[in-house]
Amino acid sequence: MMNKKGNILIGQSGGPTPVINASLAGVLSEVRKVSQIGRVYGMKQGIEGALKGELLDLTDEPAGLMDRLMYTPASVLGSCRHQLTKDEEYERLLALFAEYDIRYFVYIGGNDSMDTCHKISHLTRERGYEMQAIGVPKTIDNDLPETDHCPGYGSAARFVALSTVESGRDLEAMQTFEDVAIFEIMGRHTGWLVGSSVLGKRCDADAPHLIYMPEGVFDEEQFLQDVKSVHDRLGYVYVALSEGVRDRGGEFIGARDARVDAFGHTAISFGTGPGVYLCNLLAARLGLKARCNRPGTIQRSMASVASSTDAEEAFMVGRESIRLFADGISDVMVTLDRAPGPRYECRAGQIPLERVANVEKFLPPDFINERGNGVTQAFIDYAMPLIGDPIPDYARLGEGQ
Amino acid sequence: MMNKKGNILIGQSGGPTPVINASLAGVLSEVRKVSQIGRVYGMKQGIEGALKGELLDLTDEPAGLMDRLMYTPASVLGSCRHQLTKDEEYERLLALFAEYDIRYFVYIGGNDSMDTCHKISHLTRERGYEMQAIGVPKTIDNDLPETDHCPGYGSAARFVALSTVESGRDLEAMQTFEDVAIFEIMGRHTGWLVGSSVLGKRCDADAPHLIYMPEGVFDEEQFLQDVKSVHDRLGYVYVALSEGVRDRGGEFIGARDARVDAFGHTAISFGTGPGVYLCNLLAARLGLKARCNRPGTIQRSMASVASSTDAEEAFMVGRESIRLFADGISDVMVTLDRAPGPRYECRAGQIPLERVANVEKFLPPDFINERGNGVTQAFIDYAMPLIGDPIPDYARLGEGQ
Repeated sequence: MMNKKGNILIGQSGGPTPVINASLAGVLSEVRKVSQIGRVYGMKQGIEGALKGELLDLTDEPAGLMDRLMYTPASVLGSCRHQLTKDEEYERLLALFAEYDIRYFVYIGGNDSMDTCHKISHLTRERGYEMQAIGVPKTIDNDLPETDHCPGYGSAARFVALSTVESGRDLEAMQTFEDVAIFEIMGRHTGWLVGSSVLGKRCDADAPHLIYMPEGVFDEEQFLQDVKSVHDRLGYVYVALSEGVRDRGGEFIGARDARVDAFGHTAISFGTGPGVYLCNLLAARLGLKARCNRPGTIQRSMASVASSTDAEEAFMVGRESIRLFADGISDVMVTLDRAPGPRYECRAGQIPLERVANVEKFLPPDFINERGNGVTQAFIDYAMPLIGDPIPDYARLGEGQ
Repeated sequence: MMNKKGNILIGQSGGPTPVINASLAGVLSEVRKVSQIGRVYGMKQGIEGALKGELLDLTDEPAGLMDRLMYTPASVLGSCRHQLTKDEEYERLLALFAEYDIRYFVYIGGNDSMDTCHKISHLTRERGYEMQAIGVPKTIDNDLPETDHCPGYGSAARFVALSTVESGRDLEAMQTFEDVAIFEIMGRHTGWLVGSSVLGKRCDADAPHLIYMPEGVFDEEQFLQDVKSVHDRLGYVYVALSEGVRDRGGEFIGARDARVDAFGHTAISFGTGPGVYLCNLLAARLGLKARCNRPGTIQRSMASVASSTDAEEAFMVGRESIRLFADGISDVMVTLDRAPGPRYECRAGQIPLERVANVEKFLPPDFINERGNGVTQAFIDYAMPLIGDPIPDYARLGEGQ
């Protein structure tokens, strides 16, 4: 049962996704059914706004907002990348909670955000302030542990799968003019998203032909051999390349003008990534004409090609947070638990926040092929249900004969 | 009436579009109704394949192919960028036409391709070889003259409009972490596509805030002032930037980056474009954190967000080529003629190929705002009907109150 009458505070944090607002819709629609919860507040720009006392009162937002949140990309509350470190910040948050009588706290985010949520949960318990805190997962990187997958991933994967096979057709058509296309894909440490580039591929001619994930070592000489081998066979090569590929020494291939963000992450997204560098390498070493596609934030915001499965699950995990409050539960992250068997089915579960905070889930070895330049059928079986409707079966001449 | 019994040869040429195969479907479906036309051949890789004698026999392709061509991106026949210059090439084409009894010739392409089509038409007439030749327009650049617009443009414009407003929400959400996003958009000489970035914008907060077209002079100091002014007002700035912006001396801004020249590349699509260069400029001069989105060929191939209007019109202009043959017409390009009045309606028309070959249509001055950093309502009125279904009305908090 629910612990205490009071108000709720909701935040969105970290890099947005096409469906993070669907999770907010899930929270907001379920909150309306719970009499113990009075006013509904949103943090403006996540915990940063909370620290500045910038709350949005969502209590009287019209019911019609929920429907529109289901297809609205990015974080309507605003987001941030802020890690709580200073004692003074904790004091400010406690004062804010007391001032607004916040007894329920939902933080929708990725690894760092789950850490923030756990810290806040720990803080309130330690200080005897009665409040339940629940983390709701989101990340296009799909790298949160203890959940089958993360809301946001399926939609970004759908964009990557569609745009790979579609722009692959472009390269195939232009093969007498261009040789190689490199699609530089997000995911600094894990290959979940770059791997999804394969999900629209139906035959050898279809893109991608090579996939490089950050889990392995990126060896330039092997890369050149791989590209040459495919080019000799097909006459063109489509490469799906993680922005986070590193050399044997652990240095990012695209780290030329890297800057460092607040968490000490090397923010390779801001400079020139590895794609353009490798295009130039291909020209210099193999004489091949290569082009880099680098959609950047488009790949994590293109709601118009969102996965319907992903949107539904994002709503479900948001709604679940309120149901867990009703059961008196706190300090957990909502998870997606996949039922065993061939038919895809996922239910909401839970896991203590301390088990997920700051932990990254990497592609398991059996999802990566032996040469480290592609994914296995096991990966495809895992990821395919997450992208929603099947990728269209595009025409090829001669197929019907 | 149709001149002669014989066979037809069809080619696709130049950069692909999401709907160039819909034009092929229009040709193929209408050909089946015409008894004078016997076998149906396609050029493999455009005129390059024809020069090598590489023809595909499409006569027995199943009727179901048409439906799938309607949503299949890029050129299923293969494309090329080849300009006819040598006498020997003309002789080879004439021999090919005679060998395969080609009496009907359809070339689907942009400016250069219309020139090729016109040259071939001229050649056959001059040499007394009876053959009708018709050009079918396609280009995402929308820069063919004498037609209201070009098939392919509406779909690329739809992708640009959707991804601008959607990734604009991403920037808005992340404004405490990032300041500027630059979306580098295709169209080396004309601003039709970069201008379409505005078509999903509903309020000042929505992207884009600044649009730079290749028709004007790109002045770095004005750019810095423009960005600073928007940043002071909103706290974030989304810039839609043509890949083809040039300085007062006519030099491409994208050619300024030292890295472009590192391996001796001059084609701006293949190196680092102006976007990354300007991100670095913003960091150096204004201390702003800027990111470049550069989807490259994805913007001209993403059939999954194609404009339905565009796909229908692409089919229509393909079909029209065969109807013009039946009327004994040759040496023309099919056009799209917009009916006057507020209700959007377009019909197929025709224009002599000599009037379109190698001519580029630029944005008229009344489509560009006075400062040269945005488009006018006249442009919006022109372009909006071409992108098909309306761009979704994404949620904003507080709107329903």
